[in-house]
Amino acid sequence: MLIVLHHSASAKDVAAIKKIITKMGLKPVAIPGAERTAIGVIGNQGWVDDSPLRGNKAIQEIIHVTKPYKLVSRDIHPRDTVVGLGNGVKVGGKAPFLVIAGPCAVESRDQLMKTAVFLKKAGVPLMRGGAYKPRTSPHSFQGLREGGLELLDEVRKETGLLVVTEVVSPEHVELVAEMVDVLQIGARNMQNFDLLTEVGKTRKPVILKRGLSATVEEWFGSAEYILVGGNPDVILCERGIRTFETATRNTADLAIIPLVKKMTHLPVIFDPSHATGKRDLVLPTALAAVVVGAHGVMVETHPAPEHALSDGPQSLHFREFEKLLAQVRSLTDFRKRKLMDA
Amino acid sequence: MLIVLHHSASAKDVAAIKKIITKMGLKPVAIPGAERTAIGVIGNQGWVDDSPLRGNKAIQEIIHVTKPYKLVSRDIHPRDTVVGLGNGVKVGGKAPFLVIAGPCAVESRDQLMKTAVFLKKAGVPLMRGGAYKPRTSPHSFQGLREGGLELLDEVRKETGLLVVTEVVSPEHVELVAEMVDVLQIGARNMQNFDLLTEVGKTRKPVILKRGLSATVEEWFGSAEYILVGGNPDVILCERGIRTFETATRNTADLAIIPLVKKMTHLPVIFDPSHATGKRDLVLPTALAAVVVGAHGVMVETHPAPEHALSDGPQSLHFREFEKLLAQVRSLTDFRKRKLMDA
Amino acid sequence: MLIVLHHSASAKDVAAIKKIITKMGLKPVAIPGAERTAIGVIGNQGWVDDSPLRGNKAIQEIIHVTKPYKLVSRDIHPRDTVVGLGNGVKVGGKAPFLVIAGPCAVESRDQLMKTAVFLKKAGVPLMRGGAYKPRTSPHSFQGLREGGLELLDEVRKETGLLVVTEVVSPEHVELVAEMVDVLQIGARNMQNFDLLTEVGKTRKPVILKRGLSATVEEWFGSAEYILVGGNPDVILCERGIRTFETATRNTADLAIIPLVKKMTHLPVIFDPSHATGKRDLVLPTALAAVVVGAHGVMVETHPAPEHALSDGPQSLHFREFEKLLAQVRSLTDFRKRKLMDA
Amino acid sequence: MLIVLHHSASAKDVAAIKKIITKMGLKPVAIPGAERTAIGVIGNQGWVDDSPLRGNKAIQEIIHVTKPYKLVSRDIHPRDTVVGLGNGVKVGGKAPFLVIAGPCAVESRDQLMKTAVFLKKAGVPLMRGGAYKPRTSPHSFQGLREGGLELLDEVRKETGLLVVTEVVSPEHVELVAEMVDVLQIGARNMQNFDLLTEVGKTRKPVILKRGLSATVEEWFGSAEYILVGGNPDVILCERGIRTFETATRNTADLAIIPLVKKMTHLPVIFDPSHATGKRDLVLPTALAAVVVGAHGVMVETHPAPEHALSDGPQSLHFREFEKLLAQVRSLTDFRKRKLMDA
Repeated sequence: MLIVLHHSASAKDVAAIKKIITKMGLKPVAIPGAERTAIGVIGNQGWVDDSPLRGNKAIQEIIHVTKPYKLVSRDIHPRDTVVGLGNGVKVGGKAPFLVIAGPCAVESRDQLMKTAVFLKKAGVPLMRGGAYKPRTSPHSFQGLREGGLELLDEVRKETGLLVVTEVVSPEHVELVAEMVDVLQIGARNMQNFDLLTEVGKTRKPVILKRGLSATVEEWFGSAEYILVGGNPDVILCERGIRTFETATRNTADLAIIPLVKKMTHLPVIFDPSHATGKRDLVLPTALAAVVVGAHGVMVETHPAPEHALSDGPQSLHFREFEKLLAQVRSLTDFRKRKLMDA
Repeated sequence: MLIVLHHSASAKDVAAIKKIITKMGLKPVAIPGAERTAIGVIGNQGWVDDSPLRGNKAIQEIIHVTKPYKLVSRDIHPRDTVVGLGNGVKVGGKAPFLVIAGPCAVESRDQLMKTAVFLKKAGVPLMRGGAYKPRTSPHSFQGLREGGLELLDEVRKETGLLVVTEVVSPEHVELVAEMVDVLQIGARNMQNFDLLTEVGKTRKPVILKRGLSATVEEWFGSAEYILVGGNPDVILCERGIRTFETATRNTADLAIIPLVKKMTHLPVIFDPSHATGKRDLVLPTALAAVVVGAHGVMVETHPAPEHALSDGPQSLHFREFEKLLAQVRSLTDFRKRKLMDA
Repeated sequence: MLIVLHHSASAKDVAAIKKIITKMGLKPVAIPGAERTAIGVIGNQGWVDDSPLRGNKAIQEIIHVTKPYKLVSRDIHPRDTVVGLGNGVKVGGKAPFLVIAGPCAVESRDQLMKTAVFLKKAGVPLMRGGAYKPRTSPHSFQGLREGGLELLDEVRKETGLLVVTEVVSPEHVELVAEMVDVLQIGARNMQNFDLLTEVGKTRKPVILKRGLSATVEEWFGSAEYILVGGNPDVILCERGIRTFETATRNTADLAIIPLVKKMTHLPVIFDPSHATGKRDLVLPTALAAVVVGAHGVMVETHPAPEHALSDGPQSLHFREFEKLLAQVRSLTDFRKRKLMDA
Repeated sequence: MLIVLHHSASAKDVAAIKKIITKMGLKPVAIPGAERTAIGVIGNQGWVDDSPLRGNKAIQEIIHVTKPYKLVSRDIHPRDTVVGLGNGVKVGGKAPFLVIAGPCAVESRDQLMKTAVFLKKAGVPLMRGGAYKPRTSPHSFQGLREGGLELLDEVRKETGLLVVTEVVSPEHVELVAEMVDVLQIGARNMQNFDLLTEVGKTRKPVILKRGLSATVEEWFGSAEYILVGGNPDVILCERGIRTFETATRNTADLAIIPLVKKMTHLPVIFDPSHATGKRDLVLPTALAAVVVGAHGVMVETHPAPEHALSDGPQSLHFREFEKLLAQVRSLTDFRKRKLMDA
């Protein structure tokens, strides 16, 4: 930790701050400069709670060197985490590139079964489908909720597909964890800390979507909640961030993927459907995710997107999804042979 | 609703779209232009679900004229809502400017009681204090939770102050609603729709903070969830938005307050502590809130901010809060006599 | 300057970096931590160019303590700068609150003269009016350019009003500086460094608008260009920043004003017209600027906003401007007597 | 154009607005709705200046259907523009993927010649190098300016490489256009309209970088300035946008590339160096640009990035650049054979 003092800080201020640091069980090292003094703090074994120092009039800025997400960081856990999803399917590290697909929302048995049969045949191991739908307006379709879970369970048993669904409330976690193979935390719930704590208690893998305006540090903080709870199987999912640009639904932050991979051992996947909000942009950005080194993609597909109850404009027709799958596979293979190992 | 077609849309496309609109029970009106055609849709009694039209290749853009927050809008409810908080205290419309104050977090009986006694004496009717604390890192102080609620209840009974606290999980709503006078939904939970639905079932007033990157429309969508549930007592709270600027913790969006007042009948208050994150900026922005027409402010104050377990740098010392209170009262009074009735 | 090393940095890396620092004529101080080492750099007399260190594989982050805007900062120049504009009119420090008003663009002699006569009578000392208009589309009105300057000069001579206009190109600076009393650098040109350098050579006061997505540090960097050139008379103007929120044209960053006043000695004014883009929001935000401590406001007014060639929706009718002026004066006076001296 | 009226608009308001539209030579079509009326405007041959309507109290919103960038749009010019750069090198449409490389700034004859010889040998046709450097602080290296141009000219004559450099001031355009093959407009000057107008008068191709917070519409507006001036050879360059995320220098908006290609016929390239600001992210994002369909990339490389006078942390060593070039070529080839023709 580094403490930068104001230009006007006196020798007395410096002494007082050093005393506080010593009281905290740490060691202060003054770094006098031409215009202002800084104080380095050493001796900490991890992140330091700076509350005894904040609010001090002589301090201009407190800079943390140790980050508040120990378990997520490669500092402590340098090797890639590979998450097992069931049926021998894995994601992360050197595991094969994972494609997750399915409708935004579970709408009916027919819609879900059609999709499942299609995906099964296409060789997609994990189907997505929302039972609980967080929607901006209460007047929009809210999902089939428990009924949706049952349909997922039914289809999963019948086809042998793995299934992932979003959980939106701590009190549903137990039930949802019984019915599906992988839990998803949506962007709007990335900082729903009670929910994170609850999924941290399960032993189901968790796809943790990045919040609409979450920094990497906040995203990691949320993953830390799950890891701290004892669940090591977190899969980060970049799904676009909110910016001033309205030409796309969100701004796909593809560059963050290789950066995140350097910082954390957890797998990172990409959701091109929400990141762009436009059907035509799903394929190119899914391919981009492959080359920047994502461990997988999660794509919305629907038997009839024009009749979808949510996210129709960003859902692929099956034939479009087939094209995507073929190109993703082809590119993944090419990347492994010819491109950087980033 | 207006549907703008692509330049390349054919007469056949136009006919097909008109047919879909007719099927939806509405009436299409073509508006041919020099470069592209638009189709106006009339006959709707409220917001139209556009899913049958989205994903249509001939459509460039769908523009909604009716907004998806009927109950929040002044269209249906033109007159100001005045929310009663208990003890005859009210907020909104022509009710006196409301000052809410207290610590970020409930830390101890001593800290809370000191604050309560101070506020009571200062004439502040409603005390804030977080029992459940949503924190970016699991390694930070998480609040006293149920223990915090009990302290709030105790202090409230002893001093007669009204109390507001944040509720973070649907399953806590019932308990929290019993223990405090006003519920708060935090910025990170603004789109925790199950939580909104749950507070919509209570009869306690709800302070709904704007999300970190929530548009006005999304904020209203969240308020609509509470109103739809049957709870009419929503108080909107602007608390700063996330932007590229890091010199302040958030960017205080003060101009939104008079705009929001034109669009909705609900009361709107301002939180200068979170909006700025810096103690020195709390007073000037609180005063700004008065002149732009906010119905109140919610301010963090603490007996010893330098020892606060959270938000110390933005919490006021009691003597600073006294200054703020005096100036806010003085300015509120001046505004009523001399400034615009915006 | 503080250099934070990677977790993996070796003792050899530390030694190599210390050597580079010594070569730069500075002194390294190692600050070993539990997880990583930092190196403090001392002995610098101002901002340090860190290029010899950047790109070093062992370095995680370089943190500058001294800021790259020496002349703008209060560190070197602690007392308020008061800028004289002519006719005894001043802005900054304890000078009276300055109101600048006028049309977005100079459109005709009649339009300008009507406005000037009105402002003169109202007691506004400084009129704005754009001769060169930076417009997003080349198909929009581009301003009368040199013809506009002549009208400004004529009206100014006839009425005795001071005049400010935007300069958009280095080659115009000499001419514009002859024709008007105050130069303006628009938001889109805040980082047009050749233009800044050129206005730095004049002896005319310069209103420097904040860029659409400029941080405070970048804004100060631009002001530094003008000060370095020998022109000390820079007036900073906050005019709203670009954010995800589209309900207002920009987001008025009012909280930045008291913050900026702590950091720099230069005067800071506010432009409520561009900051909000909506006529109804001009008055409340102008008043907010008074209470947060701005040294003045710059407001668009037009004899017939509905016929204005640019910015009509945010321009005030004369009667609306009169109301604004009366309330601003009343509030300014009240603030001086009753509110904080922030 | 569509005009949405307020809920409270009267029949008289509607009549008055219709009259204004008729006066503008256009035809109004009323679209009455349940809650509010809209008026469609037809008969326009292109973008309509809405100034006579703005500021009207009865109007809630004016929605433009025709966009203000006719020449940039595919509406008028459906086929891809292929820009010739000299020496038979082309960019856009089906032309081979273009790699531009070189140092951020021209620093010395030795540095530039070393780079040129390296690039020539590597088969890169076009070298970048900044003579005029727009820097946030006046205390940073400002470029060799005219001296830099002479070095570029010398090296270009000696090696036969094409050369691109940034032009920052209208008065330099003539000189720069004589000395180099391609002009560049930097992000900070994207809305320096006098500069755009000046380069519009030359017959040199122009790389137009997207502004830090420019929407696609504003970017197109700037390109329109150049096209309107008679210069058809504009190459758009995405270089990252400013967002709340500070982990990367900017946020690479890769998804915008396929979207922009649908909207305009102009070539679009990507600058991975500025978009990310981190050496390690240049390669993966350059590859991503290939798969999303960019027509080229512009990459910073330097003989000794650790001694670069600007942008060292994002400049590649020659061996890193060779790896990038090999992988880009390999992927480009693969894409042509196997991936979508987006």
